[in-house]
Amino acid sequence: MYKLSACCSMTCGISFQPKMVLPSLRVQKQGNGHCTNVPRNVNLEKLQNNYLFPEISKRELNHLDKYPNARVISLGIGDTTEPIPQKISLSMANYACALSTADGYRGYGAEQGNQLLLGSKVTIAVQDPSFPAYIDSSVIIGQAGDYQDKTGKYQNIEYMLCGPENNFFPDLATTPRTDIIFFCSPNNPTGHAATRTQLKQLVRFARDNGSIIIFDSAYAAYITDDSPKSIFEIPGAKEVAIEISSFSKFAGFTGVRLGWTVVPEELLFSSGFPVINDFNRIVCTCFNGASNIAQAGGLACLSSEGFQAIHSVIDYYKENAKILVETFASLGLKVYGGVNAPYVWVHFPGSNSWSVFTEILEKTHIITVPGSGFGPAGAEYIRISAFGHRERIIEASRRLENLFSKREALFNFVE
Amino acid sequence: MYKLSACCSMTCGISFQPKMVLPSLRVQKQGNGHCTNVPRNVNLEKLQNNYLFPEISKRELNHLDKYPNARVISLGIGDTTEPIPQKISLSMANYACALSTADGYRGYGAEQGNQLLLGSKVTIAVQDPSFPAYIDSSVIIGQAGDYQDKTGKYQNIEYMLCGPENNFFPDLATTPRTDIIFFCSPNNPTGHAATRTQLKQLVRFARDNGSIIIFDSAYAAYITDDSPKSIFEIPGAKEVAIEISSFSKFAGFTGVRLGWTVVPEELLFSSGFPVINDFNRIVCTCFNGASNIAQAGGLACLSSEGFQAIHSVIDYYKENAKILVETFASLGLKVYGGVNAPYVWVHFPGSNSWSVFTEILEKTHIITVPGSGFGPAGAEYIRISAFGHRERIIEASRRLENLFSKREALFNFVE
Repeated sequence: MYKLSACCSMTCGISFQPKMVLPSLRVQKQGNGHCTNVPRNVNLEKLQNNYLFPEISKRELNHLDKYPNARVISLGIGDTTEPIPQKISLSMANYACALSTADGYRGYGAEQGNQLLLGSKVTIAVQDPSFPAYIDSSVIIGQAGDYQDKTGKYQNIEYMLCGPENNFFPDLATTPRTDIIFFCSPNNPTGHAATRTQLKQLVRFARDNGSIIIFDSAYAAYITDDSPKSIFEIPGAKEVAIEISSFSKFAGFTGVRLGWTVVPEELLFSSGFPVINDFNRIVCTCFNGASNIAQAGGLACLSSEGFQAIHSVIDYYKENAKILVETFASLGLKVYGGVNAPYVWVHFPGSNSWSVFTEILEKTHIITVPGSGFGPAGAEYIRISAFGHRERIIEASRRLENLFSKREALFNFVE
Repeated sequence: MYKLSACCSMTCGISFQPKMVLPSLRVQKQGNGHCTNVPRNVNLEKLQNNYLFPEISKRELNHLDKYPNARVISLGIGDTTEPIPQKISLSMANYACALSTADGYRGYGAEQGNQLLLGSKVTIAVQDPSFPAYIDSSVIIGQAGDYQDKTGKYQNIEYMLCGPENNFFPDLATTPRTDIIFFCSPNNPTGHAATRTQLKQLVRFARDNGSIIIFDSAYAAYITDDSPKSIFEIPGAKEVAIEISSFSKFAGFTGVRLGWTVVPEELLFSSGFPVINDFNRIVCTCFNGASNIAQAGGLACLSSEGFQAIHSVIDYYKENAKILVETFASLGLKVYGGVNAPYVWVHFPGSNSWSVFTEILEKTHIITVPGSGFGPAGAEYIRISAFGHRERIIEASRRLENLFSKREALFNFVE
């Protein structure tokens, strides 16, 4: 239960057998096997449907069944595609090689990481739209109430609307206090990087309310303008913020798995107890550190040669984003993001984002992500990932132009 | 919050400033900084002291301050020391190298792992003694009551005594039902591998009670006799058990970080809902998989050449264990383990294990682990790790013989 694990389920497919269900009860899928007397985690019962990205993968597979010869282009899940610079891959290879020598062998490393820090009693706020793992993880840990079909929201979670109408920054004057504020900048999915003025307001808001900001800067390396790349560029942030980040999109480490967390020693719980102490305790007990080979790669990324090489790859993805932005803009659609982030956020007013997703997939064989997967505020949007080989991005742009220039009404996607 | 992370705290040391404390209250250490209004996770407030292994590392550093020229031998934390076979390290190096080529680059892998599955409402049982992370993690997630100084136990956790008096297997006739039974075999720290008869009783007990066994087989590769290496060797186990395991001690991957979990599709919650479905959902949302480089190494371990090479390393550690067992036995001490596990468990009747630990460290410069760190049943025991270079194991044996043959009373360690 407490180690980082790759998982081997004993079976690949799960078969269901419907059990007798009273008509007035929600249908409960039942497995074939032995019922223990262990109750299911009630927090997991609250969780809605499937996680967004596996759901999209499933739809991609269904599409391939239907069109086995289609040349599918995936601009859905934000997975990097370009090779890692050799400086960095060689560092990891050398580290791995050395593990078979007496001098080079290393066992356990320093024990750090993060999870479980805040428990189930805290209240949380998230940007709407935002990366679904913030909400889903909060639900799993028991911080949320029930899901409301009518609003598409969980109770006890504060959804902070971030759209073009407010320059993608919440109206803090009407935002209630919460213990925790998840804030991702540049935002996934909108691609908006909060300005310095916006982040100053956010830090002030957290200080006034005694809240903690969990600031996710995973896409900071994509910032083109002078937006802050870290919350700690804002004076006073050390007393109210934790920053989480990752080598995934910075260095193409989506499969290598490495990230970091900054917990300032100035950050204290209401009792005065330092947050860093609990963070350290949890990490030592439950995590035990990232792979030492991955860490060797991380260090190489921070060398001047590695850093420069990485930025060439980032520039490549940014050029992809520019191509996609221009494509949608030329079709008369409102396009956001793509300048400070590898995501392009396209508005289809009055549409249902799953319908747009389905039509684009059916007619162009391109995988995107429906905006509603990121929260109710994404209901009329589609997220396009700029990760991909250049020729496929260009081909995708051509197919999209072809679809939308032929289409009678651009905005008629409601099902 | 939800990524696997290496951690960089912004500061290395934490400075404390005592705040006004009423004499009747427990002293609350306070940090220098800004008190947010966010309450500390009450589960973390329950957690006792420091995690065992960082505490021992701290004592090792203190010892080095005191004796800067001492040649310290660490038989404490069970960290592997011998090189990884080249077949395996080269697989990882080749994988890492290929990441800088267009053909070899891979991003996200399959999303699997495990944590948070069972929530805070389940009741748990653990072997006493056992690896402290089972209890500590259960406390953090909110499954335990308060710590009782008098007994050295947390409320709401069932401690199943496993000592020489019951052949290291709990008296199930007097063990109350719990939802979850953590069971580690071969056990860390006692080194006892449960026999087939014992495991049949355990599976029967779980079936009768509708419990789920979390079976930790991390040391299975060290089994010398015909004890089962997996709980799934026992008929009926698929309906009542999850097995967790690791490449750490199997292949020296303590720093590489790779493990696996087996969740049978036959295992169902009381409602009939398959456990594997929730496991998969959590893993996809909160984990995202182990490093792909580490996984390349894991696959190489399972090739016939890799598997054979690994077992040579395991045999080396087992020979170390044999030397340590013989050393303690020759001194007239009762010694357990060391045959089916890389740990030797030595009884010092009537002693206090921290006193034994301290005396051994002071007089021989050898780091061990006090048994009480693994639960109250370890109060008179010391755990010796067999991971180490052969010459250091022999040197440690020589020093221990020297200490204990000179000592007037072997058993007088109470402070």
